[in-house]
Amino acid sequence: MKVNGQAYRSIWLAADGEGVEIIDQTQLPFRFAVVRLESVEEAMAAISRMLVRGAPLIGATAAYGICLGLRRHLSSAALVNMAEQLIACRPTAINLRWAVDRMLRLLLPLPVEQRLAAAYQEAGRICEEDVAANEAIGRHGATLIAAIWEKKGGGEPVNILTHCNAGWLATVDWGTALAPIYKAVEAGIPVHVWVDETRPRNQGASLTAWELVAAGVPHHLIVDNAGGHLMQHGQVDCCIVGTDRTTASGDVCNKIGTYLKALAAFDNDVPFYVALPGSTVDWTVSNGVAEIPIEERGGEEVLRLQGQDEAGVVHTVSIAPAATPAVNPAFDVTPARLVTGLITERGICSASRAGLLGLYPEPGK
Amino acid sequence: MKVNGQAYRSIWLAADGEGVEIIDQTQLPFRFAVVRLESVEEAMAAISRMLVRGAPLIGATAAYGICLGLRRHLSSAALVNMAEQLIACRPTAINLRWAVDRMLRLLLPLPVEQRLAAAYQEAGRICEEDVAANEAIGRHGATLIAAIWEKKGGGEPVNILTHCNAGWLATVDWGTALAPIYKAVEAGIPVHVWVDETRPRNQGASLTAWELVAAGVPHHLIVDNAGGHLMQHGQVDCCIVGTDRTTASGDVCNKIGTYLKALAAFDNDVPFYVALPGSTVDWTVSNGVAEIPIEERGGEEVLRLQGQDEAGVVHTVSIAPAATPAVNPAFDVTPARLVTGLITERGICSASRAGLLGLYPEPGK
Repeated sequence: MKVNGQAYRSIWLAADGEGVEIIDQTQLPFRFAVVRLESVEEAMAAISRMLVRGAPLIGATAAYGICLGLRRHLSSAALVNMAEQLIACRPTAINLRWAVDRMLRLLLPLPVEQRLAAAYQEAGRICEEDVAANEAIGRHGATLIAAIWEKKGGGEPVNILTHCNAGWLATVDWGTALAPIYKAVEAGIPVHVWVDETRPRNQGASLTAWELVAAGVPHHLIVDNAGGHLMQHGQVDCCIVGTDRTTASGDVCNKIGTYLKALAAFDNDVPFYVALPGSTVDWTVSNGVAEIPIEERGGEEVLRLQGQDEAGVVHTVSIAPAATPAVNPAFDVTPARLVTGLITERGICSASRAGLLGLYPEPGK
Repeated sequence: MKVNGQAYRSIWLAADGEGVEIIDQTQLPFRFAVVRLESVEEAMAAISRMLVRGAPLIGATAAYGICLGLRRHLSSAALVNMAEQLIACRPTAINLRWAVDRMLRLLLPLPVEQRLAAAYQEAGRICEEDVAANEAIGRHGATLIAAIWEKKGGGEPVNILTHCNAGWLATVDWGTALAPIYKAVEAGIPVHVWVDETRPRNQGASLTAWELVAAGVPHHLIVDNAGGHLMQHGQVDCCIVGTDRTTASGDVCNKIGTYLKALAAFDNDVPFYVALPGSTVDWTVSNGVAEIPIEERGGEEVLRLQGQDEAGVVHTVSIAPAATPAVNPAFDVTPARLVTGLITERGICSASRAGLLGLYPEPGK
């Protein structure tokens, strides 16, 4: 997508073909800063400290992280070791494990001297496939938005609520939840987006809003508390969110608070769609609430937050008494029963084992 | 309740018997500042700018505001005029209208020269009645907490989730939702409170957390997004919230986001209680979602927020791109079907017309 008229992805191979460049997303929306990664340690830090985030982008960064690691150590032992460390950086998003496993499966059988070139090639392929998958998600999802628009009489904009950031910044390009919106806008369908700010890290306020400003898509920021009220009053035509891990039965694990919006959508007959590439499906897991590990992040993300004052200075400020502790689960699970449909790169299906198997019938996934 | 060992209410008559003193709640949790109100205009500004907030405290402030106004103008026309202006300060909380109407009914029939003394007396009575009602709410609600504790085996603390601030700062003293917690703690029952931060104004992080620190009640701050996840994992034994207006059929209108927590509680079989004095019941309204006017506050409350840096300097910082607008509904309505019970000063009843009429049978309410 474009930033000030220039096309960007969220991760790319540097001009020298060795380093990897990313956007430091912790500095948005205030500063657009590109960071160069030189080592697997820097890739791990970028994932842990959330310079990059979003399940597909974490996977792509891990794949390139292996390339950077192989530049120093080509042995199988080193490869397995860096793979384990990368997977441990974030526990919830399944794409991280998926991308690392894919790299290992390709690289371990290869002679040591062929590994580096093959790794860069495969990481590039993971990125290209992600872009293509997301564009396909966008095309499929846009048909749903078009249908809502026609049902509304083809006049008023379609009001779409999204939580967190599942835009192009969360993937290599296009995004998952925002791809249908970008494709609908391209097709001339008027869209208005309700952007959940998404505490504690405010990825809605800082990343989704920034993307929508850059793309010229009409939107309003709302607090995470507001969506239910808007749905009660007919101001939301549908919800579209992403997912960090989808169970084989269609439960979706996404940013904390997604479950509350799904409950409100269900209670108000508002369609609730989840957009995902097949790589976020964890076929080994069925009951999301019971089985998916939920990352517990530090309480300081709740107690302190970052913003910019009128002079343009960025401050980190506390919002609670010094003696108050905080608990900070980063994700929650929305049971399949609350999900209207899954928008994948292969089409739209019900949030169920049958629905997923219909689109992903190949064995040994 | 006590602040640094000294007993305070949230509003009181100054030592000279003329001015009225309040705590400037916009400065908490960083500064404890007492402000003196001298005129009805200052009382209105304190309500509009939310130096005081919480339905019962708004009512008490409006009652004293009339006293301050009468010190300048004693005529019926002036009285009716200031009453109308006071009611217009905040549209949702019914106690504001209730307290103003009660003052008018008493004062208008009186000879002009008797009005001032009668007004101060009645405002004082409204405050005393509020304190007594809240203490009774606390006693009734504590029996529910005690029952949960016993059901859990009398060992582990009872985990109570609350949204916004319905503590003593929202009333004259004791609070509504927090009164049962204070009474349970007094009775030796171990309680742990999940404090929703309550964006956009963060009354949970800044006021409820501050109250609980002051009272020594164990608690954790959580983002508004987290409660559903905690309920899915059995970490919430019950929810207790306040209400700014309760319909005759038991719908409750409370701080934005309350509805989402009620949905999650219902979905996870967690009891969801609403604590209220009878003065928050609007007997003229039945369908809360359709009939209660929801205050729309400025978008800047969403786009900017206030916190303190490490040096103790309070900053107002922006969290979104400059081009992003915001929408800011301040309340939402939780339908009676999601409410386990109403905790009133007269006892506990179902959230229904029958339940409310059982406790408040007197005609002409």
